[in-house]
Amino acid sequence: MILHGYWRSGTSYRTRIALNLKKLEYRQAPLDLRTGAQKSDAYLRLNPQGLVPALETDDGLVLTQSSAILEWLEETHPEPPLLPSDAAGRAQVRAMAALIGCDIHPLNNLRVLKAVRGLTSDGMGADQTSVDAWAGQWIIDGFTALETLVVRHGDGWCFGGAPTLADCYLIPQLYSARRFHVDLAAFPRLLEIEARAEVHPAFIAALPENQPDAD
Amino acid sequence: MILHGYWRSGTSYRTRIALNLKKLEYRQAPLDLRTGAQKSDAYLRLNPQGLVPALETDDGLVLTQSSAILEWLEETHPEPPLLPSDAAGRAQVRAMAALIGCDIHPLNNLRVLKAVRGLTSDGMGADQTSVDAWAGQWIIDGFTALETLVVRHGDGWCFGGAPTLADCYLIPQLYSARRFHVDLAAFPRLLEIEARAEVHPAFIAALPENQPDAD
Repeated sequence: MILHGYWRSGTSYRTRIALNLKKLEYRQAPLDLRTGAQKSDAYLRLNPQGLVPALETDDGLVLTQSSAILEWLEETHPEPPLLPSDAAGRAQVRAMAALIGCDIHPLNNLRVLKAVRGLTSDGMGADQTSVDAWAGQWIIDGFTALETLVVRHGDGWCFGGAPTLADCYLIPQLYSARRFHVDLAAFPRLLEIEARAEVHPAFIAALPENQPDAD
Repeated sequence: MILHGYWRSGTSYRTRIALNLKKLEYRQAPLDLRTGAQKSDAYLRLNPQGLVPALETDDGLVLTQSSAILEWLEETHPEPPLLPSDAAGRAQVRAMAALIGCDIHPLNNLRVLKAVRGLTSDGMGADQTSVDAWAGQWIIDGFTALETLVVRHGDGWCFGGAPTLADCYLIPQLYSARRFHVDLAAFPRLLEIEARAEVHPAFIAALPENQPDAD
């Protein structure tokens, strides 16, 4: 398989974690989002949205949107499972993943921060402090709820005692939170999961700084 | 089942469509997002995130996040199917849904628009024209890619010849686009789907103006 992504993109990072947890082989085809490589004609033919990640499968399928890619991986490569075996548990893990994937990450990614920087009425653009505050509010809102959910459902990881899709989403979001200088002291359960991921080979191999395009 | 939602919330709207397509009975428990009803202690106990929708099932489960609710509905009430029978098709439908659910809707909902209004450096807040422009850019970006995907995969609906989860997402996003005065002329295939939904009983029953809390 070929993963089209970017070392520091949260959606690429979560996809790498899932691929690694399932011990799947893949080659990376990096796109530098800072230079707009994802808007080239060649890439737009693969993914008309011009966003990362995209996964080319061995059958020649091109899959887009990390949430859809992760569900496809779970269906086609079920071991180890990244979703619980019962519908209620699956709904809870998917809700945790969506809390991050829909209510935090989309507000903090590169294209949106660029728009936020352009929003000030004096035409000068928001400074880094304003950008950190913008990103931080969504992270803190989401993590506050997620911490409660992990207390209810987690036992070492977000849900139960083994990594699930929710952890694939959480670890990159914690990495992003640190880049925006968010104080994470109020989220001890999330930090426990992060500490566990820091010594887990699948998560280590997925770290942004361990990717071929990292600078 | 009890659906906690709000008549004009896009995520509540998409959940109603799925419930209706599957011909499931549910009672509505509306929360007025404009007065902050979703932040009451009672509701936060149900959903620590304080967002709509939440679905209380007949077994007493509380499900949150519309994407997780829709997957749960599909697993527990499989007829009629809202996902294709093959993994590749399911990945495509989920990618279309996520294109809307992650890359358009989160940038246009009430809590984010409120933050956008507060972002201008003169402290006066962005005016309605700026808010429409903010919302419109994400809708146009996303719909441009979705139109291409529907040309590839659709046959009357987003994917194939029957409604799927992707249509549950699309119709509320078109409704929202009109509220932000987005010119939709460039998206004829999406408008064809909208026309089909306008005469489909499940979609009609889910319309915001047909809900008990509509004003």
